[in-house]
Amino acid sequence: MEISSKQATEEELQSYYKELEQYNVAPLWTAMADIQGKEPASKVTPYVWPWKDIRPQAIRASELVGTEQAERRVLRLMNPGLGGRTATTQTLFGGIQTVLPGEISPAHRHTPAALRFIIESDGGYTAVGGERFPMLPGDLVLTPPWAWHDHGNDTKNPMIWLDGLDLPLVNFLEISFHDQYSEPTHPITESPGTSLAKYGSMALQPTWTERKDEGSSPLMYYPWSRTREALERLAMGEDGSLYDGMLMEYTNPATGGHVMPTIACFIQMLRPGERTKSHRHTTSAVYHVVEGKGHTLVGDTKLDWESKDTFCLPGWAFHEHVNESSTEPAFLFSYTDTPILEALGFMRDEVKP
Amino acid sequence: MEISSKQATEEELQSYYKELEQYNVAPLWTAMADIQGKEPASKVTPYVWPWKDIRPQAIRASELVGTEQAERRVLRLMNPGLGGRTATTQTLFGGIQTVLPGEISPAHRHTPAALRFIIESDGGYTAVGGERFPMLPGDLVLTPPWAWHDHGNDTKNPMIWLDGLDLPLVNFLEISFHDQYSEPTHPITESPGTSLAKYGSMALQPTWTERKDEGSSPLMYYPWSRTREALERLAMGEDGSLYDGMLMEYTNPATGGHVMPTIACFIQMLRPGERTKSHRHTTSAVYHVVEGKGHTLVGDTKLDWESKDTFCLPGWAFHEHVNESSTEPAFLFSYTDTPILEALGFMRDEVKP
Amino acid sequence: MEISSKQATEEELQSYYKELEQYNVAPLWTAMADIQGKEPASKVTPYVWPWKDIRPQAIRASELVGTEQAERRVLRLMNPGLGGRTATTQTLFGGIQTVLPGEISPAHRHTPAALRFIIESDGGYTAVGGERFPMLPGDLVLTPPWAWHDHGNDTKNPMIWLDGLDLPLVNFLEISFHDQYSEPTHPITESPGTSLAKYGSMALQPTWTERKDEGSSPLMYYPWSRTREALERLAMGEDGSLYDGMLMEYTNPATGGHVMPTIACFIQMLRPGERTKSHRHTTSAVYHVVEGKGHTLVGDTKLDWESKDTFCLPGWAFHEHVNESSTEPAFLFSYTDTPILEALGFMRDEVKP
Amino acid sequence: MEISSKQATEEELQSYYKELEQYNVAPLWTAMADIQGKEPASKVTPYVWPWKDIRPQAIRASELVGTEQAERRVLRLMNPGLGGRTATTQTLFGGIQTVLPGEISPAHRHTPAALRFIIESDGGYTAVGGERFPMLPGDLVLTPPWAWHDHGNDTKNPMIWLDGLDLPLVNFLEISFHDQYSEPTHPITESPGTSLAKYGSMALQPTWTERKDEGSSPLMYYPWSRTREALERLAMGEDGSLYDGMLMEYTNPATGGHVMPTIACFIQMLRPGERTKSHRHTTSAVYHVVEGKGHTLVGDTKLDWESKDTFCLPGWAFHEHVNESSTEPAFLFSYTDTPILEALGFMRDEVKP
Repeated sequence: MEISSKQATEEELQSYYKELEQYNVAPLWTAMADIQGKEPASKVTPYVWPWKDIRPQAIRASELVGTEQAERRVLRLMNPGLGGRTATTQTLFGGIQTVLPGEISPAHRHTPAALRFIIESDGGYTAVGGERFPMLPGDLVLTPPWAWHDHGNDTKNPMIWLDGLDLPLVNFLEISFHDQYSEPTHPITESPGTSLAKYGSMALQPTWTERKDEGSSPLMYYPWSRTREALERLAMGEDGSLYDGMLMEYTNPATGGHVMPTIACFIQMLRPGERTKSHRHTTSAVYHVVEGKGHTLVGDTKLDWESKDTFCLPGWAFHEHVNESSTEPAFLFSYTDTPILEALGFMRDEVKP
Repeated sequence: MEISSKQATEEELQSYYKELEQYNVAPLWTAMADIQGKEPASKVTPYVWPWKDIRPQAIRASELVGTEQAERRVLRLMNPGLGGRTATTQTLFGGIQTVLPGEISPAHRHTPAALRFIIESDGGYTAVGGERFPMLPGDLVLTPPWAWHDHGNDTKNPMIWLDGLDLPLVNFLEISFHDQYSEPTHPITESPGTSLAKYGSMALQPTWTERKDEGSSPLMYYPWSRTREALERLAMGEDGSLYDGMLMEYTNPATGGHVMPTIACFIQMLRPGERTKSHRHTTSAVYHVVEGKGHTLVGDTKLDWESKDTFCLPGWAFHEHVNESSTEPAFLFSYTDTPILEALGFMRDEVKP
Repeated sequence: MEISSKQATEEELQSYYKELEQYNVAPLWTAMADIQGKEPASKVTPYVWPWKDIRPQAIRASELVGTEQAERRVLRLMNPGLGGRTATTQTLFGGIQTVLPGEISPAHRHTPAALRFIIESDGGYTAVGGERFPMLPGDLVLTPPWAWHDHGNDTKNPMIWLDGLDLPLVNFLEISFHDQYSEPTHPITESPGTSLAKYGSMALQPTWTERKDEGSSPLMYYPWSRTREALERLAMGEDGSLYDGMLMEYTNPATGGHVMPTIACFIQMLRPGERTKSHRHTTSAVYHVVEGKGHTLVGDTKLDWESKDTFCLPGWAFHEHVNESSTEPAFLFSYTDTPILEALGFMRDEVKP
Repeated sequence: MEISSKQATEEELQSYYKELEQYNVAPLWTAMADIQGKEPASKVTPYVWPWKDIRPQAIRASELVGTEQAERRVLRLMNPGLGGRTATTQTLFGGIQTVLPGEISPAHRHTPAALRFIIESDGGYTAVGGERFPMLPGDLVLTPPWAWHDHGNDTKNPMIWLDGLDLPLVNFLEISFHDQYSEPTHPITESPGTSLAKYGSMALQPTWTERKDEGSSPLMYYPWSRTREALERLAMGEDGSLYDGMLMEYTNPATGGHVMPTIACFIQMLRPGERTKSHRHTTSAVYHVVEGKGHTLVGDTKLDWESKDTFCLPGWAFHEHVNESSTEPAFLFSYTDTPILEALGFMRDEVKP
């Protein structure tokens, strides 16, 4: 067989491309530019959702819709660059959930991994895996994939928290399973404080519970009082990272690894006046300001933030954090898609030259 | 503070939703149905790309476009359900690549993982990691993430093969890096046959090369002659799987695991007249018919296939394979996203009741 | 060749066995009984070293020998069943070390893993890996394989502690390496409290130190105050094990696993009046009584113990612990060869029928 | 309390040491030299058991003792340096087993791991895990821990093989369990060739058998014809190791790791005239000469060997191998305690300066 390539005319090519459509086939070479960039160019927009704007809307939502109708009364943080996808970064979702006094968010479970970082609350609880965990400002509560969970507000004031999920990934992979519990709440089988006593005591762990990698952390509650104390104690003797300050990871005590198979959680203290050096990594992140005032430079974009604001960082974008106070530390909670990129071999990072 | 939910009117709600847009915030409860299905409902359409239709188009492409213009002369297999995305299933891409006598597909490397399953060829080669591998019909050649590779046709006839990549995943994760080599081909440092001699000899492995998990297989070439022999030898003493017949996985000899961090490869023999039982799993797959004639039932869809056809299977779809010949075996090559779902904890399967 | 076995006479056999000796060969069949018992029959004797006997001898040692002469002033706990081997159980060594006010045990490192459990002390220190750890009663300090370490007494009273090592294993395997530091003490590079702040804060871990499996725990100091608090807090909500009471393992926060590659460490609370059920396991153990009074039944042997006594448990021996006080808890520290048997596939256990 | 060390007289010390005995306590400082050498000094003697001496004794054994009396008719290779312990090196045992025509070595299982490397045989079999494996010269057959196994000779000539076990380790650890099967042979459930077809075909593996780390290899038979072919093919394109020539490891296809949890197996080709460079490692080894003639220098000891001889190498001894033929390759089979030392963190090696 003798075939040889000639330089086809544009008209021939267009006619050929048109013909291909009936076979559900398309040329790759016309799409090469989209597919094979020298390096990633994220569509995610660096963006801040200021608390002063978002809080009134969260309260307004609770006036307009009950948890019975909404099941979960959540405002989705929609990244402006992602064209209406339910996504705060490429892989991560953030939402602001409100539960009024007397309300219950009914028990269910699902394949997406979820975390709750509490913004405003006098108490209330998340029940997960048979234990009720308090929800006070700064507390982190995990609800790992396929774990039953419900939330309840037995206080006099609204509870408002940040929800972190891997919804964009789960939607992309088309592997969402969901189950509604037959009752509003699932059964409580553990005394208060058990999870923390079993897995949060220095590095002592019980021997009568098999200790192995279940994918998610058996410790599901990290109270703010101990988190803050840990940061402050460590800051006495350590300098931390040039690029992230005193950045600690909430770990899975059974493995020393990430808390869930798709999401990693971090807490970070920027000391008074601290300005971190610029770097970038393929992972993206959602940040929440626990306390303090400052800004984050993402490429040429300046994101100003203060207490209770939420903002997002695209992957492969140079960034640096600045604590604008010369007297007070700033605390940033964040969650990232590190476990996803690590598991699939896609981790890269780079210091700004 | 005293807040209570009332049942808002539809008008109030719409006005509220409109107002939210300026803050890049949206209600979750209006999107719950999309997000939390009881189980996955894939948008992927079960579909066959028949060789009798596709081959002429591949030849036509090589008449119209040179490898200099196209870099890679590939026809993308576009799943009809995915709205024009470069995707054959949700996570996997398949393409038909043609290289004419005398042509070279120039050396590059990229983060997407790729495999080549040869359909028509008298020889030619893929060079990867410094070794040239022959490309004969039925051979599998891996080009792992970030490995330099180029293809050349030093025969008298066109080479045509199936390209398998994880492009949809890489695009979703926004982690595509790409590098062009300074020359058309990258340097050859290994004698022919080295990779197979090192890693394909029973389970004997050299000790002077460190044997550890590099993510991808150090064995990058699985010739068809040995693949077919393995299937036939095994079929003498084993029944195989009720759901997949004699399905063997091409493995990474350094780990016993999948050949690449995002893609697993399989070869399958359906014995004369064999009809497998129906099951489903969260993984999706692209199949290529090496030899034989039969059909695959995917839910209510019947996919008829014969030698050299390519077809795809959505995730979580019940399916069964039928070899329609009563005298000849059928051989199906396939690649799946198993490593992705496994690494992230999303594997599920179910036998049809 | 035609050979057939006949029943040889005893005389023929003895003459044959004699002849074999010149070739350094011996029949296996005469030794089968020794080699292949139905189950293990340990030569280790269950035994208590009472503090009231041992303490005076430790003090006497410090009157007779200086640390300059002794390098380490340690009394070896010699298991009566092991014929003079430096061994407390088959694999584990225990010793009682004394350091007088003003003395230093000079810096060295070695392949054997070591731990120190403090019995009497007003302070003093062990320096290991560049950090000085206090040594107060009940504290556990690790000195992992090949880590520089030295001990010093800057108090007014003798320091006495239990040394736990894997010396019998290391001697059997013939892999003992040893290094003397050029100075009496090795350099201090960390502020006091750093290790505990980095790795002992709930499950928060710093991100600027690479967190990976180094074989041994990066947390090398587990103070008694927090150990006891953890046991007491956990006892509020949990029943613990039927066979071991409230038995917690000191873990490696980087892996969730054992603290060292050959030795695991445990702390155990027996509640007032608690009597555990009998079981056995292939692992052997050395126990130290931190507080309390009771006994342990090992097969038919009753080991009476009280505060500061040390005793040992052979492998595969049924045993149960009894706290003889009806009002006070008893606390037992122990170390075992679990990591050795686990790594090599030799773990077995059995409940007494 | 005021205590101070004085320099005690020798008499005082001896009287003190004597007194300590009643308490089962001994000074450590008098034993420091034994315990803490700068580096290991193995008691194992480098030694050759020449076939010309051993074979007649193996035949003589079969004339004197039946398998009914002996259960296993094995001559133990007793290392001259180990004082009568059943040990060929510190951790490894080697023995020469003989089975006459018509005899069966009855079915049993035990915790020690075992391998068989066939020296003389016209066929016969080892049955293990329900499959019968042929035993031809150069074949390697594994009998993993706790796997039922029996041997039978259905040929006209004696079968003689090398047994490799981890008996010294198992005896030291006191974890020997042993079970006699109720019948002389255990049931055959697999067709001949199944194990090799499943796990020895390039790197293709069946999918209907769960592929996971069971500790030992699911491939239990490595025939010599394929082993030799692998070495010869690899030698065409590779130089191999400076220290070990073409040394390949028999691996576990499920993990890419060692074949058993305590023993690793190797095959080595020394090309005509090849002399390896000297190095040492903490692992010890038993070697068996499959073909060829040469010598191994171990420190200052020259071990001359030829076809079918067995010799041993102590840990941490410098050694080099010499093939004395200028025309023929030499083949050395060996097994080592690498998995033990690796698992426990004791691997070290060193090139001779």
